This record gives sequence, C-alpha cells and structure tokens, in this order.
Amino acid sequence: MAKLYFRYGAMNSGKSTGLLQAAFNYEERGQRVLLAKPGVDTKGDSGIVSRLGMTRSVDFLIPAGSSARSIFAAHAAGDDPDALLQHVDTPPVACLMVDEAQFLEPAQVDDLFRIAVLDNVPVLAYGIRTDFRTRAFPGSLRLLEIAHTLEELKTICRCGRKAIFNTRRVGEAVVFDGDQVAIDGQDVWYESLCGSCYLEVSGGRLGS
Amino acid sequence: MAKLYFRYGAMNSGKSTGLLQAAFNYEERGQRVLLAKPGVDTKGDSGIVSRLGMTRSVDFLIPAGSSARSIFAAHAAGDDPDALLQHVDTPPVACLMVDEAQFLEPAQVDDLFRIAVLDNVPVLAYGIRTDFRTRAFPGSLRLLEIAHTLEELKTICRCGRKAIFNTRRVGEAVVFDGDQVAIDGQDVWYESLCGSCYLEVSGGRLGS
Amino acid sequence: MAKLYFRYGAMNSGKSTGLLQAAFNYEERGQRVLLAKPGVDTKGDSGIVSRLGMTRSVDFLIPAGSSARSIFAAHAAGDDPDALLQHVDTPPVACLMVDEAQFLEPAQVDDLFRIAVLDNVPVLAYGIRTDFRTRAFPGSLRLLEIAHTLEELKTICRCGRKAIFNTRRVGEAVVFDGDQVAIDGQDVWYESLCGSCYLEVSGGRLGS
Amino acid sequence: MAKLYFRYGAMNSGKSTGLLQAAFNYEERGQRVLLAKPGVDTKGDSGIVSRLGMTRSVDFLIPAGSSARSIFAAHAAGDDPDALLQHVDTPPVACLMVDEAQFLEPAQVDDLFRIAVLDNVPVLAYGIRTDFRTRAFPGSLRLLEIAHTLEELKTICRCGRKAIFNTRRVGEAVVFDGDQVAIDGQDVWYESLCGSCYLEVSGGRLGS
Repeated sequence: MAKLYFRYGAMNSGKSTGLLQAAFNYEERGQRVLLAKPGVDTKGDSGIVSRLGMTRSVDFLIPAGSSARSIFAAHAAGDDPDALLQHVDTPPVACLMVDEAQFLEPAQVDDLFRIAVLDNVPVLAYGIRTDFRTRAFPGSLRLLEIAHTLEELKTICRCGRKAIFNTRRVGEAVVFDGDQVAIDGQDVWYESLCGSCYLEVSGGRLGS
Repeated sequence: MAKLYFRYGAMNSGKSTGLLQAAFNYEERGQRVLLAKPGVDTKGDSGIVSRLGMTRSVDFLIPAGSSARSIFAAHAAGDDPDALLQHVDTPPVACLMVDEAQFLEPAQVDDLFRIAVLDNVPVLAYGIRTDFRTRAFPGSLRLLEIAHTLEELKTICRCGRKAIFNTRRVGEAVVFDGDQVAIDGQDVWYESLCGSCYLEVSGGRLGS
Repeated sequence: MAKLYFRYGAMNSGKSTGLLQAAFNYEERGQRVLLAKPGVDTKGDSGIVSRLGMTRSVDFLIPAGSSARSIFAAHAAGDDPDALLQHVDTPPVACLMVDEAQFLEPAQVDDLFRIAVLDNVPVLAYGIRTDFRTRAFPGSLRLLEIAHTLEELKTICRCGRKAIFNTRRVGEAVVFDGDQVAIDGQDVWYESLCGSCYLEVSGGRLGS
Repeated sequence: MAKLYFRYGAMNSGKSTGLLQAAFNYEERGQRVLLAKPGVDTKGDSGIVSRLGMTRSVDFLIPAGSSARSIFAAHAAGDDPDALLQHVDTPPVACLMVDEAQFLEPAQVDDLFRIAVLDNVPVLAYGIRTDFRTRAFPGSLRLLEIAHTLEELKTICRCGRKAIFNTRRVGEAVVFDGDQVAIDGQDVWYESLCGSCYLEVSGGRLGS
C-alpha cells in the first residue's frame, strides 16, 4: 500500500527544488511521474519554479471544486488529447507530486489519500504549513491530519535558527491583517522566521 | 532556545509510557520536571496511566479557560501550598510534559509555545492527532500548526500496518456520528486502524 | 516487504521500555511477537528489564556464532519443546524484537535483514550506538550500515542537552581505557553525555 | 551549541542538490557559508555538481592527512590569499557544508564534530552510507557513530521501493569485487537498489 507524504516547510525552504529532484530521481530510473498543483494558486500559471533556477510545467492543475482523483485517473490513463494524438504509451504512474499543496481543498486532500491507499500510487505533497498569522491553510490542515508521514523541509531564520513561521511584509512593515493569500510581489513579500524572532516582531502575538 | 515538541500518535500507541519514561530520564539525572494535563480530560482524574501498568499523578491540571503559562509559572516557582509547607527548594524546571494534549485549547498551546521560546523550558506535548472522524482535536490542530518538531509515536493496525486513524465503536458497530469526545468505557471503545482498514470499515468515507 | 529498524540511543534512553511497549501494542491487537537478545550479553540472563520496573523474558537468545535466522525460524514455527508439549498453535510472527542489539555479530545483523526482506517479518532492533570511546559496537555498526530506518531514542545529558555518548566511570573517575564491554555493576557505571560535556571530561579527546 | 548533521543517502539521491539548496537558503538571508569536500574525492575537481544541472565550486578541499578544523578556521578567518587581496570583510560563518563526506578520514569527522561543538558552527555533511559491498566508507562510519543527527535523503529503486544500497556495475554485470572507490565512468557505474533487489542480484549475499 502506497502512502501520502506531506513535506512541509516555511516559505523559501526549497520545496519546489525537492519536488523537482524527486521527479528527476524517478524518471532517471525509467519511471513515470505526474506533477500537479492547485488551480487556485493565484500565481496563475502552470510552472513549478525552484529558486535555484529550474522550472518545469505541471502535467495538470487541480481546479477548485474538482475531484483530484478523477483528474489524476484521466491523466494516468493517458486520456489527454495531446497524448492520444501522439499515440503515447501510458505506463503506470509511479508517483504523483503536488506543489503548493496548502492551496488544495480538504476534499482534494482526501482524494490524494485515496490515490495512495486505493490506487496504490505514492503521493508527495509539498506545501507551506501555516499562513502569516500562524494558521494552517485549508490544504495544509487536512494534510497535517491525515498524511501517513509528515516530513519537515528545513530552512533558517535571519538569526540562524530554524524558521517555522512566515511573516507578511509590505515594504519593511510587518502586517498581521489581510487575506490569507496575498501572493508576494512588488509590495507584499514574506520572511520566514523562527519562533523567537516571530514573537519579537509580533509583540508577543501568536494565534492569541 | 527551548522547543515545543508534539509527539502524536493514534490511540494506544504508548504515549503515556513515553511521557513517563522521559520524566524518569530527567529525574534520574537529578533534574526537575513538571507533568500536566488538560482539566477538560473527561476521564476526570489527575493520573497519567500507562497501559503497561505504571501510573503517576500530574503536578497540575490546566483548566478550561486558564492560562497554561501562568499556572506553569506558579508551579515552577513552587507557589503551591504543599511545597511551601514542606519548605521544598524549587530548582529550575528542566522540562514540562503534557499528556492528553489534544484536549488543550488553542490559546493554551500558544502558552506552551511561549513557555518554550520565552521561558526557555522544553515542552513535550503528547496527544492524539485526530478524532474518530479523522478531524484534528482543537489542541492537536494548534500543535500541528506551531510545534517546532512533530514526532510520530507508532502503533499498528490489526492488519499489521501502521495505524494512523481511530475508529469509534459501540460494541462491534463502527460509528461515525456523535460528540468529538466520548471517553471509552463499557459501551464505547476505540480501535486504531491504518488508512486501508479505515476506508474499508467506513465504506470509503473519510472527511468527505 | 518488511523492514529492519534500528532504534538506537545512549544508555538509559528507554530502549527496553520502548521494546516492551511495542510488544504490548502488537499483542493487544492479537498478534504474535518474538523477543530475543544476543547470548553474549554478559548480563548473562534472559530478561528484558525496563528501568520503569517492567521485566519480561526473551523467547530466545542468539548465541555467538549462531544463525539468527535459523533460530528465529525454529521459534516462529513453534519447534520448541515447551510449545510442542502444550500443543500450542503457532500463528505467524508479526514482529521480531531484539534488545541489546549492539552485541550481535555482523552476520547476525545480516540475518535480521534477511528475516525482514526475505521472510517479510518486521524486525525492531534496539541498541546502543557507541561504546565509551565513541566507537560503534559490532552489532551497532552493521545496523547503522544496513538498517532500512534509523530512529533515535533520545535522552538527556546532565546539562539538559541531548545525550549522544556514553562515558564509563569507575567511581567518580572517567576512564577511556579497558575492554569494550564491561557491564555496569558496583564499580563500573556509565553516564550518558552530550557532545559538549563529553569533550569537557575527555579533555577534547574523541576518537582521535 | 551547534550540531553535526549527517545527511546520508544512496547514490543519486539528490545530496548535492540538497547541499546547494541549503547554501542558497543561508545566503539568501545574508549569511555566509563555506563549502568543502575531501581532497581524496577521486573525481579530482573542486566542483559540487547536481544532476539537476547546477554546479558550484567548493571554498576549500580537505586533503588527506590534514586537519579539517584548521583549514576551516583559516578560511573562516579570511586568511586566504584571494580574500586578502580583495580586502574582503569576513563575517562569521553561519554553516559549513561538506559534500562527498564519505571520503573524509575518521579524524577529519572528529574535526567536524569539534567545529560544531567547540566553534559553534553547524556542520552539514552529505554523503553515501555504504559502498557496493554494503560496508560503510571510513567517513560515513565515523559520521554514523558521532553525528548529532542522522537524516536520510531518500531515493527509489527500479522497483519503486526506497533504495538503500549501491551496486557496482561494469556494463550490465554486477560486481562484488574490487576497490572500495572506483569512480563511475564509461565502464563502471552504480545503481541504487532496495534490499530486496540487492539480495536478488547478489544471490542472497550481503556482507556475509
């Protein structure tokens, strides 16, 4: 029986690099993988981007409200027009990898669990544990509840300790209000901090 | 800087035994520990009970609505009547251990985090990850979000695989409705199952 | 395919308690386990003793020079005189647990690996990582090389940090010479220390 | 107190990628790292090469017979001619990372331990656990004995299970004789296998 893994980490901990390396390892051994990410990722594209410079397109998006297991099954079977046109053989899928898994809906995480347990395909879900207010994202929460294995991807705080939280910044200011999802861009950016530095910038504020 | 650890496992995975062994290890080296559990643990007593036969009383309960950090500080300082009467010296606390941590309130878990980070006392929180419907308990959820380290205590399913879920049973029947907390007794009991056996008894039902 | 696990820790980290809890978990679910330890354990007895107060006899010893896999197979099949006399049914073995695994011979560790991989029985080997000179024991070394999974059982140093080394003491003196195995007794005892405290008492001496 | 980490994995498990990502994480936060590898790495160059396509030069080699701690101290202090010529400021080193750590001498691993414990600089050592005969390399062995934390970097076997061993191949043939180190090239290559596939190709042969 295959398992559902949740590989979680703070922002900029190397999640996409880890995913791309894992995909490479499978393919180097002649095995087929499928890469996916939630359609609600407001970055709006289909790329998996490593800060080390590598990029790769996902095989499919998982739109809001959709069944991740049905979409997976269709792609695993090769029922996509491109493959059919090319008469591509469709070997079994050795692994499904999902980036930005924090943005999945809880029911879609349940789907990933069924893909692992019922379809016997290992699922590696990479994602952020909590938002800038230290609350789990919907997808992260469900993964923390039901994943067979929780594996932390570590990164460091500016002080050298392990970073576990993400602070949202607008310019130099740290903000604690706003929507859960505000993609980093010109104004908004995120800094991963350890517990001590987080409590310092938050004035002791955590979830409460 | 000390850390907050969440050692989670399915029911009957040996959490209380692990806690008692950890306490023993500290005390054997001449160090002082404090043991606590939530007051809302409806077993209604102050004992930490290992199925291997060991029992020990907690040093304090954490009642609903209370500040875990204040109660801890008072006990760490030796402000309890028994200690004062005995003129007991109060060495610093080397570790705080919390059993049944799934029943803590989220704000009390935030307190545990502050005890670790601000008071520099390691906190070992032992608890169950999810209820009989595979949903996190309030305390577990907050621990999954903010603990510095998540460590799984393993146990096995009747089929030999690793158990990750807890099913509620009334006699032989598996039930999926009812309050989140129903302490096991004559009628109600729990069985820890792996993902495959859980989906079998639930007819494919998970959270969704 | 089952796996060989090496659960290692410094002395007095709760290895035997962990083993007894794991055995209890299996048996509580109606599954059969076998407990073993090396015959060369110079404590000379057949007991697994937890410092928390529990004791249990092993099902068999693994004498020096013997094949651990053959002995296991005989006991798994119920070919021991006691069982035959009692006409005991012999259900399959769900798990083999080995205490004091650091004293196994390397070839016996290879046997444990084959029991896991070829006989499909999970093997939990509990043992100490290194001797009082920070050198692996023969059994530990082989387990560190080939176990599928290495899991640390933690305990603490007198300073509160994680202990990883074992110092040998004769009375209050710390000694760095002598046989690798000198069972603790009236004169000789061991103290688990962190790296910092070890380097302090050793005057900076490690393996070199 | 800083720690010595051994991140071990079978060949082609992504060790160099992991190292480069970890270095990137530190530097992105404005912190200084040093990268090193043993001089005896018979690849004979000073590059850290990820199969994903990234390459980076080490800051220094650790030649056979040398003191890793002295070389580290000199580079940390900026006593290298290039830096002096450029009047480069030398901020403290936040992390030392060592690739191909299996080729270190045991005394050099002891040096890494002292760098962590006495100089308070975290050391990340990446390396292979065992050779093609399932025996630890000298550096791996010492790291398995004394590293504060052992972390496995996973990869997969051709069968889809976790690979833990490395087989040496000359063309299609699997060989079990020869020097411990034979760098892969035109004739010699390595395949990472799980325990089951290894025992199959070795005819049941392991270390014994």
